Formats: sequence, C-alpha cells, structure tokens
Amino acid sequence: MQNFTLHNPTRILFGQGRIADISREIPTGARVLVTYGGGSVVKTGTLAEVKSALKDFTVFEFAGIEPNPTYETLMQAIELARREQIDFLLAVGGGSVIDGTKFIAAAIPFSGDPWDILAKGAAIERAIPFGSVLTLPATGSEMNNFAVVSRRASSDKLAFSSPVVFPLFSVLDPSKTFTLPPRQVANGVVDAFVHVTEQYLTYPADAKVQDRFAEGLLLTLIEEGPRALQEPENYAVRANLMWTATLALNGLIGAGVPQDWATHMLGHELTALHGLDHAQTLAVLLPAMLQVCREEKREKLLQYADRIWGLREGNAEARINQAIEHTRQFFESLQVPTRLSDYGIGTEAISALMAQLERHGMVALGEHQDLDIARSQQVYEMAA
Amino acid sequence: MQNFTLHNPTRILFGQGRIADISREIPTGARVLVTYGGGSVVKTGTLAEVKSALKDFTVFEFAGIEPNPTYETLMQAIELARREQIDFLLAVGGGSVIDGTKFIAAAIPFSGDPWDILAKGAAIERAIPFGSVLTLPATGSEMNNFAVVSRRASSDKLAFSSPVVFPLFSVLDPSKTFTLPPRQVANGVVDAFVHVTEQYLTYPADAKVQDRFAEGLLLTLIEEGPRALQEPENYAVRANLMWTATLALNGLIGAGVPQDWATHMLGHELTALHGLDHAQTLAVLLPAMLQVCREEKREKLLQYADRIWGLREGNAEARINQAIEHTRQFFESLQVPTRLSDYGIGTEAISALMAQLERHGMVALGEHQDLDIARSQQVYEMAA
Repeated sequence: MQNFTLHNPTRILFGQGRIADISREIPTGARVLVTYGGGSVVKTGTLAEVKSALKDFTVFEFAGIEPNPTYETLMQAIELARREQIDFLLAVGGGSVIDGTKFIAAAIPFSGDPWDILAKGAAIERAIPFGSVLTLPATGSEMNNFAVVSRRASSDKLAFSSPVVFPLFSVLDPSKTFTLPPRQVANGVVDAFVHVTEQYLTYPADAKVQDRFAEGLLLTLIEEGPRALQEPENYAVRANLMWTATLALNGLIGAGVPQDWATHMLGHELTALHGLDHAQTLAVLLPAMLQVCREEKREKLLQYADRIWGLREGNAEARINQAIEHTRQFFESLQVPTRLSDYGIGTEAISALMAQLERHGMVALGEHQDLDIARSQQVYEMAA
Repeated sequence: MQNFTLHNPTRILFGQGRIADISREIPTGARVLVTYGGGSVVKTGTLAEVKSALKDFTVFEFAGIEPNPTYETLMQAIELARREQIDFLLAVGGGSVIDGTKFIAAAIPFSGDPWDILAKGAAIERAIPFGSVLTLPATGSEMNNFAVVSRRASSDKLAFSSPVVFPLFSVLDPSKTFTLPPRQVANGVVDAFVHVTEQYLTYPADAKVQDRFAEGLLLTLIEEGPRALQEPENYAVRANLMWTATLALNGLIGAGVPQDWATHMLGHELTALHGLDHAQTLAVLLPAMLQVCREEKREKLLQYADRIWGLREGNAEARINQAIEHTRQFFESLQVPTRLSDYGIGTEAISALMAQLERHGMVALGEHQDLDIARSQQVYEMAA
C-alpha cells in the first residue's frame, strides 16, 4: 500500500426527506445563493422544496449552469455573488452544477483573474462555504474537492482541486432521482463505473481493502444500473446507485493505490471538440484504453475478469479480452454506445484531438505516465 | 437503505514515516499533553519519535493509561491537563489510550462531574482538540467519536460518544505494529472482525454497498490475520490489517444499516467482572450469539456463509452451523480461545453477569431490541 493522506469533511445527509434538514447546516443569517441548471429542478419541485427549507435565510438564485459548466456562465454567478455579498452557496443539481459551484465558491474571494485557477493552477487560500442537494448520481462531486470547468471561447475543459472546496454538506435523497431521463441515469452509471476503474485497473499495490471496495462498487453498478432503468421508482435501487456513485470518487478507494485517469483526459477532449456527454466519452474510450494498456494492467485485468465477471476458464489473454468485451456490453446494455462511429465521429477527427491533448500537456498519462501521444492516438483509433 | 447522516472529519496520515508530519497538524504554540500506556511505546522508540516531531511545542506526558482505561487513572490526567493549561492532546498507543484520551479531552472543559459523561450521558459542548498515533490496529477509535471507559470502584464499563471527540488527525504507520506481542495482534483481528459483524450480521436492508464493504473487510481479516502472526514484519500485511481495522468502525459500513452490538455489551460485563481482554470476550460470545439469534439473522447468516466462507452445499441450517463453526475456528486459529471454560469461567459465574446487565439497563439488546435478559443468559450459557 502506498502512503496516503485521507481527509473528507463533507457531511452526508442521506435519505428521503433530508432536504428539510439543510437549514440546520447553514450559518444563521447567511445570504444564500442557490445555483442550478436548466430548470428540471424547477419542474420536479426540488427547487421549491429547497427554498421552503431556506425560508429563514436571504435567498438569491442563479440558474443556467449547463452540463460541462462553462467559465463564461460561472463568471456571471461570481459577479452576482460579489455584488450581493453572498456568504453561502447551495448547489441543487448534478455534478455539473456542483462542479460549477465549487469554482464560484473559490473565485468569489480570489483576488487575481479566476481563469488562473483553472489554467495555471493558481493557489486558492479560501472559498465561500457551500452545500449541495444532489439530483443526479454520477460524478461524486458532492463528496470530493475537485471540479471540471469548460471554456467555450477556447474549447478548454480543465480541472482544479483544493482542500477548501469540499461541500460542507450534501443531501442525497434517492427519491429525487426518480424523474431523471434514462440517458442521464445511464450516463451516471457509466461515469461511476469508470471512476472506479481509473483507481482500480492499474497495477497491484498490496491494497486488499481498496481492491475489494472497488469491486463492491463495480458489482453494485452492474446489478443496479440496468434495474434503475427498468424500475425508475425503485427506491432501494436508486439508493444503492446514489451511494455507490458518491463512494466511487470521494477519495476512499483511491487512497494508497496508483491511479490512472487517462480515459478521463482523452474523454475531455472529445467533449470539448464534439460535445459528447462526459459518460459517452468514457464508454467509448475505456474498452479501447484497456486494450492498448493491457500489458501494464495485466494482473489487475485478470483480477477484474475473475472477481467482477466470474471469468475463470480459458487462457489469460482470452479472459482479458472477455472482460473488456463484457465491459463494453455492459455500457451498451445501458444504451450508451461504445464506438466513436456511433456518434458520427470518423478517424479524420483524431488529429485535432491529438493537437488538443498536446496543447493541454497531456503527453504522459496513466498510472505509469507512459501513455504518450502516440499511444493516446492508438486509443482513439481503437475506439473508432 | 435506512436514512443516515455520515460525517467523519478525522484526517488520516497513513504510511511509514508519517509521525514526522504531525507538527503541521497541531496549532502553533500549543501546549501538548502526550498520553500513553504501559511503556511499550517507550521501548519501541515510538514515543521518542513522537517527541522529536513535537520539538517546537511545549510537551507534557501522562503515562499509565491501562487496557480498558479507568476513570480513576484518567481523572489524574484531567487534573494535570487543567493545571498545566493543556490545549492539545496526543494519544500514542492503541484503542485504550485513544479512548481514554477522548474522555480526557471531553472532561477538561466539562463543568460538572466528569463521571456524568459516562453514567448519565451528559451533553458535551466541546472538547480539547487531539490527535493520535496508532500503534495497535483493533478498535477503530483512531477514526471515530466514541470511547469506552471503566470504573474500577464500581466494576462499570461504559461508553460515550460525541461529535466533538473525533481525533483531528491519526497517524497510521504499519511498521509501528511490527513489535506487537502476538496476543495483541490476534486480539486486534478478532476485535475488528466482530466490529464488522455487529454491523453486518443483522437483517437485510437493501444496502448492497455496505454489505460488500463489510464482506471485503472480513475477507481481508481472514487472509491477513494469520499472516500477520506468521510474518510480523511483513509491511503489506500489517498495512492491510491496520487500514481494515480502522474502516471496520469509522461509521462507513454502519451507515444506513441496522446494527446489533449485543456481543459487545455482553462482553463488557465479562471484562468488568473477570478481566478478559475485550477481544477474548468477543471471540467467546460471537459464536454463541449467532446460534441464539440464528432465526432473526437467518438471511444475513446465509449470505455470510456464501460470500465469506464459500458454503454453498447442503441445506440452509447446515450452512449456518458451518459458518458459525468456521468463525469459531478462525478465532481459535489466531490462538484466541472461544469458550468461557477456556478462561476458567464456569456457569456459576453467569448469575453475576446477568445482574450486571440488568444494572446497566442492557435488557433489550440487538438490532431488534429483542435480546432480553433471558436470551442473554442463553448466550452466556451457550458460551460455557
């Protein structure tokens, strides 16, 4: 096991009816900016429920944080928050709204150009405290301290993290996910699945607990993902999915083990240039990545084949191939296509993706930092 | 899944050499009281390493916190701390030292009689901040907010918990456990194992992740426990054991599921009256408890038989019996005897144990609160 530091101060309020409890988590007298996305939280009544819980506070609203939240939009929220002297933020939505709210929280008191937080990794001394009400299980943003923000003007999709951007609290009410469109549910399952594999499908590090926890999350996603689509109002299924997605990226399973994240980095460029959903990029790239990196990931791929897919017959190469194929079929079974061509993207698009990777310095990716530009190109080609 | 609130602010510093990092975790200028036990941390050099890391602080020491820390001893530390205006505590040792330090931390600023914290569950408003350097993986106290304290004068062994007694940080350096006596290593494995079963062997609650995490911990203990005894300086084994013991009782696997804890409650009385090690009481009582409660625990016992012990043949009753027998054999394989008679305790001792249970109000235990005095007596009798 590698040395690690683990600290996660986010308070989780899990279960039906927990939105009512948020008023106790916010400092008395706070001026609260509620941030949300495209209006589904208005339609479903979740926003009204939140506002009712906030009746003792001065509340402002900022709507319109888009999927893959943009710097341009978030800067408007930052202006509003500074103008109105906001001292607490409450994100109501999925990972994009929470990610965007982390950036707002960090940028409000930031004295320089907020873009430097993303582009130059500028140090963040403090952030406005914030909470979240999660409506879409997927990214884990509700219990971690990183965020991804896009800039339309330059086709950038960049991440930042800081110890000061953990949510103070997050409400996880599975019943708030009943009305999600199937595509978002499926995307969430794929996203959580690949969050786990980025921390699990690397090389052995004598970390038995982390491995078994990762496997527990994968098995739960495989069991509950399809059921979530078939039985959208099954509370138990949604509860398992929601908690799994949070645990997939809250620091726990990644503590003390090598991490990869190359699939995510290559995926960000696909979203930036072609607008694919984040999870679609992962579904396309993971099977290709595992093929390209099968030698360095060999031992963990065999463990994955055994413990996740029950593959114990045949030679090692065949089991690895089958495990990758099962992974692809799982994504396809959720109606998330796994080939670039399924999204109308041909091989002629690859050179522009490579240029983006180089521009963003993504030239030594993976747990061994040995996924260079040439091998990244192989991944895109294998995903064709 | 049941509704739950989960919040664990303890910062874990895991790995070799991490004691050197504690000075960054303690407020500058703090007057630090280092608490420890019987001197093994002196012999092994761990205390010297801690003091070297604290060279920029004003440091006091309090030695002599015993296994099953006593109120009488801890009151001396509280007097010292008040007299010397201590504003930070650092526990160096195992669960007893950390539990004792939690009580010291809560009692220092407590205005009433500190005994009320234990005996009357008096509310604790605040506590002196404290950290820990763990030398014995077992209790999970390094990452949770409860503690058990004994009072010699009255043969009481009582617990308390509070949101203000989470350690600020805990150092988990597996190499500091190499020199532990085999009995303490074995006790730690049994203790962690039963911490898991108290949160797992109850009734199904549609909590797939919690179940799989619990199973991952049990499987790791079964694999690594015997190896820890055979290869005391195997770092990987000790690392897995140490992290497993912490995760067994840090709130994670118990969130959203029913919990039992009857084995612990009955065990406390065995320690109070007969001086058995805490883990010895658990090894004696768990197999008996599972037999007495096999009907209400039936579904989870069958899952346990399948997923932990691979028992898939024969009828359900036989599989449950085998699973309980495997559990007993596992404890015995660690040289922890599993019968009261192995400790020289005969059935004539049971009536005094029952009187203690009644005196402590332990008359409706277990996940269904249906383990009454008569059934507790059955457990003691079955453990004879």
